[in-house]
Amino acid sequence: MNLSLYLKERQALVEEALCASIGDGRVPAKLAEAMAYSLNAGGKRLRPILVIAGAEAVGGNAAQVLPAAVALEMIHTFSLIHDDLPAMDDDSLRRGKPTNHVVYGEAHAILAGDGLLAEAFAVFADAAHFPDVDPAILVRVIHDVAQATGPRGMTGGQVIDMEATGTAQTEATLERLHAHKTGRLITVSVITGARLAGATHNQCAALTRYGDDIGLAFQIADDILDIEGNQEELGKDIGSDAAQGKSTYPTVIGMAASKKRARALVEKAIDALSTFEDSADPLRALARYVVDRKK
Amino acid sequence: MNLSLYLKERQALVEEALCASIGDGRVPAKLAEAMAYSLNAGGKRLRPILVIAGAEAVGGNAAQVLPAAVALEMIHTFSLIHDDLPAMDDDSLRRGKPTNHVVYGEAHAILAGDGLLAEAFAVFADAAHFPDVDPAILVRVIHDVAQATGPRGMTGGQVIDMEATGTAQTEATLERLHAHKTGRLITVSVITGARLAGATHNQCAALTRYGDDIGLAFQIADDILDIEGNQEELGKDIGSDAAQGKSTYPTVIGMAASKKRARALVEKAIDALSTFEDSADPLRALARYVVDRKK
Repeated sequence: MNLSLYLKERQALVEEALCASIGDGRVPAKLAEAMAYSLNAGGKRLRPILVIAGAEAVGGNAAQVLPAAVALEMIHTFSLIHDDLPAMDDDSLRRGKPTNHVVYGEAHAILAGDGLLAEAFAVFADAAHFPDVDPAILVRVIHDVAQATGPRGMTGGQVIDMEATGTAQTEATLERLHAHKTGRLITVSVITGARLAGATHNQCAALTRYGDDIGLAFQIADDILDIEGNQEELGKDIGSDAAQGKSTYPTVIGMAASKKRARALVEKAIDALSTFEDSADPLRALARYVVDRKK
Repeated sequence: MNLSLYLKERQALVEEALCASIGDGRVPAKLAEAMAYSLNAGGKRLRPILVIAGAEAVGGNAAQVLPAAVALEMIHTFSLIHDDLPAMDDDSLRRGKPTNHVVYGEAHAILAGDGLLAEAFAVFADAAHFPDVDPAILVRVIHDVAQATGPRGMTGGQVIDMEATGTAQTEATLERLHAHKTGRLITVSVITGARLAGATHNQCAALTRYGDDIGLAFQIADDILDIEGNQEELGKDIGSDAAQGKSTYPTVIGMAASKKRARALVEKAIDALSTFEDSADPLRALARYVVDRKK
């Protein structure tokens, strides 16, 4: 399949839906602007595309799950805004643009993040968004997304990350950190799309294995890009992990072993899809993309 | 009815449920500690008690809605932690105790707030918590809570508050500020309890009017207490609104008119309950309590 055409089409759908998602006039203007600034700052849109590809894998389509794709990107964006704050990673550049607090100030950046997080659940729980979905399934989806986002997931991962910074980690502790900080939201993106499109229990189990594997592969690729990437393409500083005293796969197991591990995870992720037909080809192509990407 | 006995019994139920709500070992220790610190820092527990009283008003009971009561207090606590941050109101004392960021640092305080917000939705969407509730009702409840919390509700209210600080407000703009910042979460607390216990459309409409009126009365009482209250009982500095350049009801319409307006709102709230029998007596007593309280 032609992945770059696939990505281009899905990204266009997602961008359009993201643009339409904030400003309905009932949000205070400066808050809406701060939320939209980071939401519309580009990026790969990996999580929303995984929502769509997860739905397609089980016979669904993008239109069915587009609000969920938007909600997942809102949650991802919330985490980026808060991670960049002076009290956290203190980053002033993200995707080549000044970070939210640099433009809107710390208070508005904190609230823009809070607003995106709460709004994501309002989007999920808007019955008009998923007219054909059994509400019991929708409740399950919301539960899984909330857990992947909260203290047992991404928010917990940020704490693990802060506490690990400055201390040499083992591969096992690094894997735990990444599973929390990025892995769970990636897995739940695939599962959300699949569940909303009617996935069976067995399909969800296979897609969870797929998500966990590409989630970790994605993070190892990130670690590699932080050393070998092109600053202009990445839109952020190279070597920032090392400068911040963060352990990464290349520093813990070496560059060659990291590349080998990422490739092995991709193969394992694709193996997890063995019971799926062509409908899972986008997921297969995306698995290779997460390690082959240049940004 | 004996309100102080009622409050004591319901507060005990809520405190016990709050204590049990965080530490299941899957949350990183310091994050769990920071979340629990603010969640267990006492307070009136007004929102969870309104959830319970809302359920009771339509023939339900506390046990049916206790997880929702916990979730609403998590959301309220998230907002307090973030409001107190140096970049926001920069408060070092809350309920007589050092604020979250004073104890755990800014980064952990931001994440403790984020964690409580996400966890609240995980609690709501845990199907085991509401076995007898139609999932479609649960989705509606989650939607309303998310909207009352997010950019169209409390988070938006905090932005309106920041922008209003230092500028003289009219009564109308003050009312809009308070409706967003505190009113919507108070109303949604009553409605959440009622809906989960099977409220009809007409009951929800009456309880919404009740909630909107006591929400505003509560905030006017807060403004009055900030001037006339006892620092020791309040657990925070007196006159902090004026010191921060915030418009309040007493500064905008005068102290006597503020007290009159609060009392009138309480009577209006109680009138809204005219179609309810004795089961709404706790709500009636709570309406008087929100303006008669000393803290």
